[in-house]
Amino acid sequence: MADTPVIHVLNGPNLNLLGVREPDIYGRDTLADIEQSCIKAAAKVEGGATVVFRQTNHEGVLVDWIQEAREGADALIINPAAYGHTSVALHDALKTLSIPVIELHLSNPAAREAFRHHSYVSSAATGVIAGFGAAGYELAVQAALIKVRERG
Amino acid sequence: MADTPVIHVLNGPNLNLLGVREPDIYGRDTLADIEQSCIKAAAKVEGGATVVFRQTNHEGVLVDWIQEAREGADALIINPAAYGHTSVALHDALKTLSIPVIELHLSNPAAREAFRHHSYVSSAATGVIAGFGAAGYELAVQAALIKVRERG
Amino acid sequence: MADTPVIHVLNGPNLNLLGVREPDIYGRDTLADIEQSCIKAAAKVEGGATVVFRQTNHEGVLVDWIQEAREGADALIINPAAYGHTSVALHDALKTLSIPVIELHLSNPAAREAFRHHSYVSSAATGVIAGFGAAGYELAVQAALIKVRERG
Amino acid sequence: MADTPVIHVLNGPNLNLLGVREPDIYGRDTLADIEQSCIKAAAKVEGGATVVFRQTNHEGVLVDWIQEAREGADALIINPAAYGHTSVALHDALKTLSIPVIELHLSNPAAREAFRHHSYVSSAATGVIAGFGAAGYELAVQAALIKVRERG
Amino acid sequence: MADTPVIHVLNGPNLNLLGVREPDIYGRDTLADIEQSCIKAAAKVEGGATVVFRQTNHEGVLVDWIQEAREGADALIINPAAYGHTSVALHDALKTLSIPVIELHLSNPAAREAFRHHSYVSSAATGVIAGFGAAGYELAVQAALIKVRERG
Amino acid sequence: MADTPVIHVLNGPNLNLLGVREPDIYGRDTLADIEQSCIKAAAKVEGGATVVFRQTNHEGVLVDWIQEAREGADALIINPAAYGHTSVALHDALKTLSIPVIELHLSNPAAREAFRHHSYVSSAATGVIAGFGAAGYELAVQAALIKVRERG
Amino acid sequence: MADTPVIHVLNGPNLNLLGVREPDIYGRDTLADIEQSCIKAAAKVEGGATVVFRQTNHEGVLVDWIQEAREGADALIINPAAYGHTSVALHDALKTLSIPVIELHLSNPAAREAFRHHSYVSSAATGVIAGFGAAGYELAVQAALIKVRERG
Amino acid sequence: MADTPVIHVLNGPNLNLLGVREPDIYGRDTLADIEQSCIKAAAKVEGGATVVFRQTNHEGVLVDWIQEAREGADALIINPAAYGHTSVALHDALKTLSIPVIELHLSNPAAREAFRHHSYVSSAATGVIAGFGAAGYELAVQAALIKVRERG
Amino acid sequence: MADTPVIHVLNGPNLNLLGVREPDIYGRDTLADIEQSCIKAAAKVEGGATVVFRQTNHEGVLVDWIQEAREGADALIINPAAYGHTSVALHDALKTLSIPVIELHLSNPAAREAFRHHSYVSSAATGVIAGFGAAGYELAVQAALIKVRERG
Amino acid sequence: MADTPVIHVLNGPNLNLLGVREPDIYGRDTLADIEQSCIKAAAKVEGGATVVFRQTNHEGVLVDWIQEAREGADALIINPAAYGHTSVALHDALKTLSIPVIELHLSNPAAREAFRHHSYVSSAATGVIAGFGAAGYELAVQAALIKVRERG
Amino acid sequence: MADTPVIHVLNGPNLNLLGVREPDIYGRDTLADIEQSCIKAAAKVEGGATVVFRQTNHEGVLVDWIQEAREGADALIINPAAYGHTSVALHDALKTLSIPVIELHLSNPAAREAFRHHSYVSSAATGVIAGFGAAGYELAVQAALIKVRERG
Amino acid sequence: MADTPVIHVLNGPNLNLLGVREPDIYGRDTLADIEQSCIKAAAKVEGGATVVFRQTNHEGVLVDWIQEAREGADALIINPAAYGHTSVALHDALKTLSIPVIELHLSNPAAREAFRHHSYVSSAATGVIAGFGAAGYELAVQAALIKVRERG
Repeated sequence: MADTPVIHVLNGPNLNLLGVREPDIYGRDTLADIEQSCIKAAAKVEGGATVVFRQTNHEGVLVDWIQEAREGADALIINPAAYGHTSVALHDALKTLSIPVIELHLSNPAAREAFRHHSYVSSAATGVIAGFGAAGYELAVQAALIKVRERG
Repeated sequence: MADTPVIHVLNGPNLNLLGVREPDIYGRDTLADIEQSCIKAAAKVEGGATVVFRQTNHEGVLVDWIQEAREGADALIINPAAYGHTSVALHDALKTLSIPVIELHLSNPAAREAFRHHSYVSSAATGVIAGFGAAGYELAVQAALIKVRERG
Repeated sequence: MADTPVIHVLNGPNLNLLGVREPDIYGRDTLADIEQSCIKAAAKVEGGATVVFRQTNHEGVLVDWIQEAREGADALIINPAAYGHTSVALHDALKTLSIPVIELHLSNPAAREAFRHHSYVSSAATGVIAGFGAAGYELAVQAALIKVRERG
Repeated sequence: MADTPVIHVLNGPNLNLLGVREPDIYGRDTLADIEQSCIKAAAKVEGGATVVFRQTNHEGVLVDWIQEAREGADALIINPAAYGHTSVALHDALKTLSIPVIELHLSNPAAREAFRHHSYVSSAATGVIAGFGAAGYELAVQAALIKVRERG
Repeated sequence: MADTPVIHVLNGPNLNLLGVREPDIYGRDTLADIEQSCIKAAAKVEGGATVVFRQTNHEGVLVDWIQEAREGADALIINPAAYGHTSVALHDALKTLSIPVIELHLSNPAAREAFRHHSYVSSAATGVIAGFGAAGYELAVQAALIKVRERG
Repeated sequence: MADTPVIHVLNGPNLNLLGVREPDIYGRDTLADIEQSCIKAAAKVEGGATVVFRQTNHEGVLVDWIQEAREGADALIINPAAYGHTSVALHDALKTLSIPVIELHLSNPAAREAFRHHSYVSSAATGVIAGFGAAGYELAVQAALIKVRERG
Repeated sequence: MADTPVIHVLNGPNLNLLGVREPDIYGRDTLADIEQSCIKAAAKVEGGATVVFRQTNHEGVLVDWIQEAREGADALIINPAAYGHTSVALHDALKTLSIPVIELHLSNPAAREAFRHHSYVSSAATGVIAGFGAAGYELAVQAALIKVRERG
Repeated sequence: MADTPVIHVLNGPNLNLLGVREPDIYGRDTLADIEQSCIKAAAKVEGGATVVFRQTNHEGVLVDWIQEAREGADALIINPAAYGHTSVALHDALKTLSIPVIELHLSNPAAREAFRHHSYVSSAATGVIAGFGAAGYELAVQAALIKVRERG
Repeated sequence: MADTPVIHVLNGPNLNLLGVREPDIYGRDTLADIEQSCIKAAAKVEGGATVVFRQTNHEGVLVDWIQEAREGADALIINPAAYGHTSVALHDALKTLSIPVIELHLSNPAAREAFRHHSYVSSAATGVIAGFGAAGYELAVQAALIKVRERG
Repeated sequence: MADTPVIHVLNGPNLNLLGVREPDIYGRDTLADIEQSCIKAAAKVEGGATVVFRQTNHEGVLVDWIQEAREGADALIINPAAYGHTSVALHDALKTLSIPVIELHLSNPAAREAFRHHSYVSSAATGVIAGFGAAGYELAVQAALIKVRERG
Repeated sequence: MADTPVIHVLNGPNLNLLGVREPDIYGRDTLADIEQSCIKAAAKVEGGATVVFRQTNHEGVLVDWIQEAREGADALIINPAAYGHTSVALHDALKTLSIPVIELHLSNPAAREAFRHHSYVSSAATGVIAGFGAAGYELAVQAALIKVRERG
Repeated sequence: MADTPVIHVLNGPNLNLLGVREPDIYGRDTLADIEQSCIKAAAKVEGGATVVFRQTNHEGVLVDWIQEAREGADALIINPAAYGHTSVALHDALKTLSIPVIELHLSNPAAREAFRHHSYVSSAATGVIAGFGAAGYELAVQAALIKVRERG
């Protein structure tokens, strides 16, 4: 583990539209705002932490990025969005990691359409945080650092 | 809405092989031929319409292009091909649009294998046109313009 | 094929209430209005076309009428309404036809209750048009005549 | 039981097209030919038998006719065609009979589409004869008379 | 609402055999007896009520009659018998009504075969009364008038 | 049977909040109001009837109370609320009774979430009354007394 | 085809107990009685027919015998009993035959337990006869000879 | 809302054995330790917060306690343990609350047996936190207070 | 392990009615009779054994009692009755035990309704004894003591 | 019943490898050892009992042997091993017996793969004993003799 | 392991008809031809290998032969044909082997009927080779010897 | 076909980590090692063969590469990894090829999680090789060349 822990935060398809699309449902925070909150949340922890924050609409790119986390990341937070429900490739990529993995959802999938009730990511994750909107990211950064410390 | 309506026509995986592959089933029209038909169909409408016509084998690129339609497109026609059956990401991207969305299939999926009977795109579309081969694109252009006028 | 093509347009249960019931959902066009649109759409085609337009609440009558289309009809458009989801008899009757068959729905069944997601008619139809309200009938008349010409 | 047994033979939707539609699959015998075969088969039995032979495309008419068989019929043969797969009403009507009921199919439903593998009629029938084409009717007449004698 | 409320009572397939068929299960009351009970139950209510009482074995006729209830009926009681389990057309017809709709069953479908456990009518009904035999009709008339008063 | 019939009315989890929680859906009647209506409804019957009215949030207590009904109760009305969907124990307890059992629901479960479509209580009940709100209790008291008389 | 047609009649597990076990359900005819009826039924046909009649409790022996029918048999009647519901091996063996195959059941499987509703034999058979007890064998011999003549 | 927010933390069956049972899986923290952590986590928030912490093995008691949270609680954290998978009663009780509800699991149910993949509590909760062991409680307290502030 | 082994025998809902309810099915032995048989069966074993015998209708109480068996019990016999089919809480509680656990049923659930074919208790039990009525308890006591000796 | 009761103990496929294969799971007792235990257990019973003990890998042989038990056996114990999960033929053979039938499993199928959770034998057995290893046979012999006495 | 490795090649039902039945699908090679190819393929390997090649239509014989492979075989190749889809007994027998097991299919089951998509043998096999016709045997011999060497 | 056959070997997501990730499960061979083995295996064949070997984490890129194989490839070997279970697009692309297609898996999917039991690639492949680790590639190259020769 690096002296200052590094947390990769990966965001899946359509999350680049956050704050723009249906703000009454998804909130007015943009993904850039959320990146700032994560950085702040990381800074509050004793010793600090570095946040690497990325978004893509491409499943294959998410797989690439998860593999990159094998080098240098101490924890990974992933909001897989739609790919959580359909991607065995994400599941398999996450299974190759030995660092803590946190699955994050802005809304609560259990309260939405049936096809959102299953996630291939969940069974490859250490833990899940869902339904807290943008605030969930801050909780996930904290949770990631707790898990990093526990394994430290 | 722009003075001259703009229609984005997106084509999914393997449609670049149209006219080449199994012409007895899929017809002898190439995708370039179909693009020309769409342009002609658009020209017939009073005031005309602009057609933006694209194909990709990549799910993520389709998501990108659907998001691009948020700027400047008045209607979107999508032949999702195989991704219609497996992509929640397309569903979610289409749900962010407020313009008419038309799902198009060359053949009639209901008369094919069971795994083609469900489409994640249908429930995010205004309407569906399936089974009319290349001619379906012309109908879709018309349908799109009818819907644009209705909302106009 | 007759000199002037003949198109039978069959309408299933509860469609006689169109324009009266829930106009905000189903539109304000009555079935009589739609019949007129079909006639106009047929007239626009070069050489014209004759439209035979009927409605019934009885599954058996729909079967009778489909059988009648074996004589003198060049194409059949059917909005089976509720019977599309439950009637193998319609499926079997349509399978006896060698003319183009178009299934039509005013709304988009894929975006409604689960029991509307399957249609016995679809797998016996040449093509499907759904979700365009009354305008769908005009598209279907056009589609029917394209298919008649193709086979002509 | 009447001196000369009476057998009602009921035929469901689309069977009026027998001999006309797809003769390579369903054979060249018309329903009128089959009626004659049934009458001959009944005549061969010692003492003879009367055959009442009817066809309809209407589920409700089949229910009416099954109820009529409560008076004067000694056995009932029913080829429910498509309604066998969808009609609980036929099931219930047949359950009110105390005479032998024989379900008949021209083709073998088990070798066709999945939606033909279940019949609501079967569980209300004494026995089933399927897959013997027009000849199945003669077998059914015989079977009916055997059952009538057994109960006689 | 008319001064004296009008209640339509519709009865589905095979109910014309009540009192005749299996009296140990379904009771000895004929449908005519039940009609009289309904009229008496309606008369007991303050101000009285008119009962229109009908039976048919035809799904399409039930749809027609439900549509007729749009004019002049203040409440509708329907014992759909077998069609309750298979008819989306009944569901759709009932959904066009704005008056109270009561689904009635003589026996308790939940205690019978699995194919009787689901009813397309239930989800389109205000309420359900099942398992009380002929007495259920009197309860349904009362329930209908309570609901009419509540909306009155 | 006692001279004056005794009816036990059991109410399951969360029904103690009636009239307080979401009055627009469940009505403004409290459970105490409903108890009074039941008593009045019982009083109207010739000879009268005694009502024992109880509520609990505990499945085990409902089982205890159903067993108590074996002594001294002439009929049992149960609104099992959520436990109807999950409790085989209630089913088994009700099956030990030889008196009429009426299942009651304020709303119509068939028109709600899928997990409310099945009830373990229904198949152990004489009859079911659902969807009439507080008025359903009065109907149930009547229905119970009709059944008691029939068996009397 | 031999001058005198040869019919193989194969009987599966537990059929050796016929006439002994539960005679009220399965009848009092033993398998030896049934063999005699088959021989008599074959003798009645013009030109006669030879019957080869066998029973085994072993699935593998049934497969062996079906293969033997490839030499010298003109038709095969099989009462697979329990193996009909579980044996893909029987299905595959029957599929290698080019002669008519008739599946026979003494009782009507559709009216029994759910695990008897599917038969791997049906989809490999020309036709099915079920529910006529021992008399079904005679019908099957007739049906076999009709089919042999048709192909003759 | 009270000046100092009050958070109810409810714990379901078998959680009283925490720290004692299988410490390698569930950790060495007892429920008493976890209560202390919650209190500390609440104290860290500006203005502080009061924690009411309870455990029971009884579903009915959980329902009672959820109802009690209607008075005086500003947020509710529930670790339903086994009852999450089977209790519609908990779902219904939680639905009566208008305060934030957080579902908590020590382990990650998605990575365990299939019967733990569905929770009736999730669809009635604001959000879910799972898989972080005892540390999940601290995150949940934080999440609860964020949600209280947002609504504040 | 104590010098004299201690066996806890827990009985679930409605078993307190044994001997009283439907004696033709469940036998004439009361639960008190069965308790005596268990004590006698335990006494026959060399060195003897102590039997703690309890019944409750409450799932939560069963969970409490299973937890109590963690102290002082050498084996646990549980007849979960209806809760076996619905209670994950029992499963989880039993999983915390390291002593032999025997699931007992008076009747054979596999020969009853489908909802009795699955038991959450079975997969947490050492072994299962079902279908032997009251005598099953004596076998279970023996089995328990065999298992205790094996582990002794 | 013979003076000295006779118990047939039948063992299915792969049980001949007991004691040899995976002794840590299945124990070190060979099938010969188990036969001896059964004989001893039978000898302990007042009056004694004769044990006929057999093993085969062939489903058909098991059917043959079950039929043989119709003559001279007073009870039958069967460890069907794999055939329990797939053999309707065993089910049907056992159904022809009128003596007590005990299904036995060495391990607890409910705690193994899903395809072992259903047994066609269970619904044809008097009772089931599972999960007690070789000791289960001794319990089964006892159980068989109890059942023989009860019927004696 | 013997100096020269020994490979058992087992063939299931109907494979004795290879080369005779439907040669256009299954090829013109007989099973004897295939045995010769296996021997040749084994001879090509350095040091050679002995092939024991057998076919049977009996499931039980396959179980016997798999058990025989426990003595003297270094690898086992099995083409279970139809029994692969239905036989838990084969699964269990194969699980007792510690040598490499290769499942072989001539055709590609995934491209055939649904009931061929699952194999009980696959989950007990080291590897699977399917769809290469007779050539698949040669590949399997090679694969077997590779696996033997790896474990050697 | 080119003089020297050309084989395309495509590898899907996460296979770039071979030899690095979990070497105890997937072996110590890297993808580069495997490429060399394929080249060697191809060289051993008379006349040799050219191997084009590629890996990607992107579904769309696999589709592109499969389409490229339409020009110049004589056979295609694909290890689709996770995309095999979820990609209809791969299925459709492979269906456009007329050359032999071999599906390859390092491990045996049938022995892993349920979601790996189905492959969209299998039904579009000539044959399948699974479970032989890196050695499977050499077998696949051989198999490919056998198939090329057969069609040659």
